[in-house]
Amino acid sequence: MKILVLGGDGYLGWPTALHLSEVGHDVAVVDNFARRGYDFEMGVDSLVPIEPLQTRIRVWRELTGRRIGCHVGDLTDADFTYQVVRDFGPDTIVHFAEQRAAPYSMVDRKHAVYTQVNNVVGTLNVLYAIAELDPEIHLVKLGTMGAYGEPNIDIEEGWIEIEHKGRKDRVLFPKRPGSYYHLSKVHDSHNIEFACRIWGLRATDLNQGIVYGQQTPETARDDRLATRYDYDAVFGTVLNRFVIQSVLGLPLTVYGSGSQVRGIIEIRDTVKCLELACDNPADHGEFRVFNQMTQSMSITAMAQTIARVSPDRVAIDHLANPRVEEEGHHYNVVHSGLVELGLVPHLLSDTLIESLFEITKRYAYRVRPDSMLPTVDWRQAASPIST
Amino acid sequence: MKILVLGGDGYLGWPTALHLSEVGHDVAVVDNFARRGYDFEMGVDSLVPIEPLQTRIRVWRELTGRRIGCHVGDLTDADFTYQVVRDFGPDTIVHFAEQRAAPYSMVDRKHAVYTQVNNVVGTLNVLYAIAELDPEIHLVKLGTMGAYGEPNIDIEEGWIEIEHKGRKDRVLFPKRPGSYYHLSKVHDSHNIEFACRIWGLRATDLNQGIVYGQQTPETARDDRLATRYDYDAVFGTVLNRFVIQSVLGLPLTVYGSGSQVRGIIEIRDTVKCLELACDNPADHGEFRVFNQMTQSMSITAMAQTIARVSPDRVAIDHLANPRVEEEGHHYNVVHSGLVELGLVPHLLSDTLIESLFEITKRYAYRVRPDSMLPTVDWRQAASPIST
Repeated sequence: MKILVLGGDGYLGWPTALHLSEVGHDVAVVDNFARRGYDFEMGVDSLVPIEPLQTRIRVWRELTGRRIGCHVGDLTDADFTYQVVRDFGPDTIVHFAEQRAAPYSMVDRKHAVYTQVNNVVGTLNVLYAIAELDPEIHLVKLGTMGAYGEPNIDIEEGWIEIEHKGRKDRVLFPKRPGSYYHLSKVHDSHNIEFACRIWGLRATDLNQGIVYGQQTPETARDDRLATRYDYDAVFGTVLNRFVIQSVLGLPLTVYGSGSQVRGIIEIRDTVKCLELACDNPADHGEFRVFNQMTQSMSITAMAQTIARVSPDRVAIDHLANPRVEEEGHHYNVVHSGLVELGLVPHLLSDTLIESLFEITKRYAYRVRPDSMLPTVDWRQAASPIST
Repeated sequence: MKILVLGGDGYLGWPTALHLSEVGHDVAVVDNFARRGYDFEMGVDSLVPIEPLQTRIRVWRELTGRRIGCHVGDLTDADFTYQVVRDFGPDTIVHFAEQRAAPYSMVDRKHAVYTQVNNVVGTLNVLYAIAELDPEIHLVKLGTMGAYGEPNIDIEEGWIEIEHKGRKDRVLFPKRPGSYYHLSKVHDSHNIEFACRIWGLRATDLNQGIVYGQQTPETARDDRLATRYDYDAVFGTVLNRFVIQSVLGLPLTVYGSGSQVRGIIEIRDTVKCLELACDNPADHGEFRVFNQMTQSMSITAMAQTIARVSPDRVAIDHLANPRVEEEGHHYNVVHSGLVELGLVPHLLSDTLIESLFEITKRYAYRVRPDSMLPTVDWRQAASPIST
């Protein structure tokens, strides 16, 4: 199968591209290096050094003999998007290419507008390219569990059957997300569902939980194949950040009570989920949604798990919550779709955490500790970036 | 009360500005004349001639002694938006300033992207201007009944109480709209609800039905105060278009079976609803939604009503439906919120239709009949504009 991975230079896009190549697909990646640009803007960097995309691709070819195509450009440039789809002729497009950090979108007006325009327009251009060039292409789009917010009812996989005043319908699950970034994913999902409905496109929306871990079997083959490992308060996801704080002897920074529950998933399961979604496409006209997470855990439980496994004494600090979000809320999520396709989850384990300790220790000298404290305040319309 | 009317040069923005001025508010309007630009693009014009905004404002002042402020600029230009809010210092912002035609958004990729970026970014800039300059400002935002789509359950006013697996929540009513334009309004609503939640803003979202009619007591005082009256297949709303077709002796163009049901509202009720929403602001932090329509009617029933009232013999043509939409669907809408605030609806009447016949006859020589046939096909990613 020919698979085009949009955002193929990112934290998850790159390991996904390698995994899809490893299992035998013909893979090409697209990236505009926006993610590397955010690092420059904020004065931070991946804890684990990463090579330029071209080097990564060359090393993969040297080690495995497999070629990965490379297209540099921006999806908001429609001419570029159409040209890549026309040239490569994919069967499947995997779409990671969005600004993906909630705090980044909440920095100020410009960052909010950038996030929504970048994400919504990029996805619209991809939808139109598919509709105009090859409606058979299966779109596999990365969404987020955060799009749902914290409803007081169980979270279904994208759709929900509701009964109201004696009548029934199957409707899109109502969303009430917690940042302009998460809202951009809600906008995307509505646009994609519509494109499936009017043009008969086939799409899978993967509402992914918080990803942790840094290695897949493919990236582990060579240091030059490593993917990102972010620890800063803007792009560092919570579990990875806790590991890094514990290794540095810093307190784990829990926002608010820590009773907020989140869906989580290990990076090796992410790449497997992408493989399963590609191998089992949605039907024509179908807007299919999977909740791509393997377990639920409170922020406090995550911190306690890291503290328990750490060989050193670890403190847990409760900071005033910079986000506006529910604490002590209901959280029960259906996430059986990908398991039914064959996913065998890696649940959070001491072994995995210990391996993350090793990686972190190796590169601990690269950390900028002050970047781990939250500076983006949801209640303010503008917050300075910590630089 | 100081009220800023965004999009105050448009079909409804202008009569709303006049009405709010008439009842004693201090009104200023903002417009970038995008709506007049779409006419140039498509080679059509309002059936009733309209004066430049500056002339309209001058005539209103001559007739009534009342001043209306005028700010020319684009809401997607944040500097402009902030400056106007800062200079005028409104208590209420009424926001009509969006691209508002479904067919226009469905012309092709560029028109879809333009519609979503223009509408979403304009509204984001307004939200940020309110949050940063004066969070007391009440935002009254125009939405559309079309945002709901055609669910198989009754349509509530923006929110719905649902019970699922033994638990309950009040959630945003799930939306499944029928064009990229309607989707832009869904995106707006999600963004506005979030801004109310995190910043404590106060907003009223008015999901308006299809508006018909061309005169309000204020616009009727002088020909130079007239508002638009559109008949073309892109911007002409269905009831007005049927009236014009009947006067010209053309068949009324019903799309598909005509069993599609729509919420409708007369233009005099629109301006009254805006007055009521302004006079009764939402609470701090409240995202309040009203369904701004007064009755439901199928497209066929609208055509039959026009045919019945017309003094001439009128044919009804059923065209292949260019839209992808449900026919023969359930449609039962709660729209009691504005009535509870004091709205006394004008239901569709023979008298109103007869007055529209008069207006139409007076300007019938200005019609370009071919522009009334639909050329934008929902099933195609790109349709040529009829020029």
